[in-house]
Amino acid sequence: MDTKHVTSFSSICLLIVTAMAASSTTELQHPNIVIFLADDMGYGDLSSYGHPTQEWGPIDDLAREGLRFTSMYTASSLCSPSRAALLTGRLPVRVGMYGLQMNFTPLTPTGMPPEEITLAEALRDAGYSTGMVGKWHLGINSRTAMDGAFLPYRNGFDYVGTNLPYTNLWSCDENQIHVQRPNSLGCYLYRNATIIQQPIAHENLTRTFVEDAKTFIGQHHKTRIDKPFFLFMSFAHPHVNLFSNKNFNGSSQRGVYGDNIREMSWGVGEIMREIKRLGFDENTLVLFSSDNGGQLELCNEGGDNGIFRGGKGNFFDGGLRVPGIVRWPGHIRPGRINTQVISQMDIFPTFVQLAGGNIPHDRVIDGQDVRHLLSLQSSSYEAKNPTSKSSNHEPLFFYCNDKLFAVRYGNFKFHYRSMPVKSKFEYAATCGEAGFPNDYYFECLFCGSRCVLKHDPPLIYNLAADPSEAYSLDPQLHQGLLQELKRVVEDHESNLVKGPALFTSLAISSIPCCDKSSPGCSCNYP
Amino acid sequence: MDTKHVTSFSSICLLIVTAMAASSTTELQHPNIVIFLADDMGYGDLSSYGHPTQEWGPIDDLAREGLRFTSMYTASSLCSPSRAALLTGRLPVRVGMYGLQMNFTPLTPTGMPPEEITLAEALRDAGYSTGMVGKWHLGINSRTAMDGAFLPYRNGFDYVGTNLPYTNLWSCDENQIHVQRPNSLGCYLYRNATIIQQPIAHENLTRTFVEDAKTFIGQHHKTRIDKPFFLFMSFAHPHVNLFSNKNFNGSSQRGVYGDNIREMSWGVGEIMREIKRLGFDENTLVLFSSDNGGQLELCNEGGDNGIFRGGKGNFFDGGLRVPGIVRWPGHIRPGRINTQVISQMDIFPTFVQLAGGNIPHDRVIDGQDVRHLLSLQSSSYEAKNPTSKSSNHEPLFFYCNDKLFAVRYGNFKFHYRSMPVKSKFEYAATCGEAGFPNDYYFECLFCGSRCVLKHDPPLIYNLAADPSEAYSLDPQLHQGLLQELKRVVEDHESNLVKGPALFTSLAISSIPCCDKSSPGCSCNYP
Repeated sequence: MDTKHVTSFSSICLLIVTAMAASSTTELQHPNIVIFLADDMGYGDLSSYGHPTQEWGPIDDLAREGLRFTSMYTASSLCSPSRAALLTGRLPVRVGMYGLQMNFTPLTPTGMPPEEITLAEALRDAGYSTGMVGKWHLGINSRTAMDGAFLPYRNGFDYVGTNLPYTNLWSCDENQIHVQRPNSLGCYLYRNATIIQQPIAHENLTRTFVEDAKTFIGQHHKTRIDKPFFLFMSFAHPHVNLFSNKNFNGSSQRGVYGDNIREMSWGVGEIMREIKRLGFDENTLVLFSSDNGGQLELCNEGGDNGIFRGGKGNFFDGGLRVPGIVRWPGHIRPGRINTQVISQMDIFPTFVQLAGGNIPHDRVIDGQDVRHLLSLQSSSYEAKNPTSKSSNHEPLFFYCNDKLFAVRYGNFKFHYRSMPVKSKFEYAATCGEAGFPNDYYFECLFCGSRCVLKHDPPLIYNLAADPSEAYSLDPQLHQGLLQELKRVVEDHESNLVKGPALFTSLAISSIPCCDKSSPGCSCNYP
Repeated sequence: MDTKHVTSFSSICLLIVTAMAASSTTELQHPNIVIFLADDMGYGDLSSYGHPTQEWGPIDDLAREGLRFTSMYTASSLCSPSRAALLTGRLPVRVGMYGLQMNFTPLTPTGMPPEEITLAEALRDAGYSTGMVGKWHLGINSRTAMDGAFLPYRNGFDYVGTNLPYTNLWSCDENQIHVQRPNSLGCYLYRNATIIQQPIAHENLTRTFVEDAKTFIGQHHKTRIDKPFFLFMSFAHPHVNLFSNKNFNGSSQRGVYGDNIREMSWGVGEIMREIKRLGFDENTLVLFSSDNGGQLELCNEGGDNGIFRGGKGNFFDGGLRVPGIVRWPGHIRPGRINTQVISQMDIFPTFVQLAGGNIPHDRVIDGQDVRHLLSLQSSSYEAKNPTSKSSNHEPLFFYCNDKLFAVRYGNFKFHYRSMPVKSKFEYAATCGEAGFPNDYYFECLFCGSRCVLKHDPPLIYNLAADPSEAYSLDPQLHQGLLQELKRVVEDHESNLVKGPALFTSLAISSIPCCDKSSPGCSCNYP
């Protein structure tokens, strides 16, 4: 063969290879995407994740029919930073999720920065119709009580159903179980930029969320595969104040927390039923997860983090590790992946690429593309990689505010700083009858508080052998590992550009209020 | 109709009803029966019971294909009493499993009393061929070092493969990991009444057990349905001294304990493969369980008891609650039962009745027939009984030696006495590098020790709402419940006849020894 022939033969080969690659990628492209997100639900709260008394429900059916990760990490153990990372694929500290507070509050006149590209925006750019319903917690107003500058409809969501822009707080309790009367300054629902309830009436909340989600899905047609949809269904459950409607009150042998899980699971089931009824099932990728672990200080009204240490508000895995379920019939093989770490920051690059969208190149995306863990061929990843006993995920950096607290690297976790944490049994001493929480508090919350312990050298745990972070390794015996960690952290820090701090200023003028004449804002629409 | 007609009509009805009952019972009769029993494996040690890093294996396949109980209780948190109860359906204290020691030791000149009817004896009487392989721990010799008076072949097993008559002890370590050299006085294997190894060579132990089990199964023919078999496959795993062969050393990301689970799971898989190869699969009922929970004092070489409190040697659920998997294709519906308590004492009456055998009427059988939880129609018990939020099992009484420590009654657990227990995180302070256990010990072992706490009124926990036994209930608020408990316990105690204490006398002459000329018994056959 002369050179010319070689060249054209090579070109043909390249074409064939490209075509093959394209066809195998096509298989994994353009599904409808649904993200179900729970609020403060622990790793061990679901029947399918090992809870011995929580009833099996539709969420668990997703787990049975889908792929279950045992090492899915949130980016933070608190709501706003965790959710910001999920929606941008970026470390919370890059987005600016730090400052004097730990989360957005109703007084914070900032929110998700407009220059951030959210998953909704990236998917909309890829031709998706985008919708969200439920809890937001990524900012509300900028200058006035009603400008709604940071609400979901400003962040890429074409459709926004009933929206809980802040959180269903402990103090939103309307049944005098934990507080005398709801603090309406923190408890409201929106429709687009308008408050529709203040304080929150819980009886029909989940049903309303579900109806809205169904309305959004119903706007689509299965024949219009050029216009897939993305739904972000963000439940208020099972964050305290716990609530459920009359169909679920007393329905769980586990008690009020279990009733909450059941109501949420019912909601998932209703939406899945609608997806099937409309013929979307085969082409819909569903993810179920939680924004952080359960809060141990809340006794039997906090979530169960399984065998993991700690919980919400600290950086042991009880606060960070959550159920991670993906289901896509015919595309994702049912099973379980227990060697490979996955981060909620991976959702952005992975889903955007599945959608045929573009990953922004003008900024750091911390998440990584994990399509190889999801495809039908390789979802039995562990069977194909029997010798892969260590996660090959890039290191995960866990910041409390803008301080580096912990790193997960391979099978190891390192803590530079940590909150003192107690076991469930120790917290029990502070609890009332039957685990009733007497107070809403965190043992140690602020990242720079005196209660924070500093570790130099860092604490080291092998999470494959010791997932509970019970048995720290002797740093003297792991000098090589610590050297490697040092290199990895220095690399990371040298490239880290922190976003401007968002949790710093407070402005009373920004507090949402449906009745400006009333200082307490205790109005409710008829 | 006159009386005569009424009578004959009734008789016909009775015949029809009886025939229907018979036909529906026939479906559940005369299966081959295989019991796989682990030694000291905790509730949370299996992938299918929620362990996040333990690899999925053939035991987990049984769970996926079968029915999983989340509330299966052993009768005791120590080996001999637990195993005695499993094999007789009777409370350990009735059988005599108490005295100065807590278990049979090599010095104990007693064993399972000949007048007890074991599951093997009852099934043999029902026409079954009976076999066992592996760990026994229900007595060895009576008067001499070699009489084998209490070995399995004296207790209803026609075939006895390689037998570990005592236990694979911490001190059986032949690799100088925990002890300098194995204590051969406690470490030996038998074939029938003959010692074949002293001390134990572990490399091929599990493989030998598996080969023996296959030999036993291979003696049967699927066409001879009149001669079903019962196999009791009792593993040495994962009791310390941990061991696995070269195929499994280093095979688990979880480390040495995980290697042990994998080797055991491999054994289960090999036996299941043989059952299928020989055509027995459809007619074989398989049960997998453990004899008690993991020992927390053993750090990362003890088992994981999931979210349950305590472990081996105490009477919180971590010591008592174990995986309970039953599988029988076409007869038991795959699923999960999380409301109903089941006791290993139920195995005797349930399996004997499935086998068409006779339940002895001359003694108290503490277990109850739970066939309704196993049949194809009703194995989705919870779906059929959506309002059954409370277990309707008879009360379970937990004795430490001959002292009543705890009662499980409905959803409640009561502790009259308890051992002080620590969390895994607290025990970690006593552990070496990476959770290496520095010593074999129990925080508090003897039932009458000073360390035992007495509770009057008893501690009360609601295990449906609080499966971790973290939040005790205020007795002042549950006077009615305590009254009911008092009645139940008085009823029980008034009918309790304790068997003669078996753990009392010691006789050096009974210690098994393959070389009588050697005081240390350190011989091994070539």
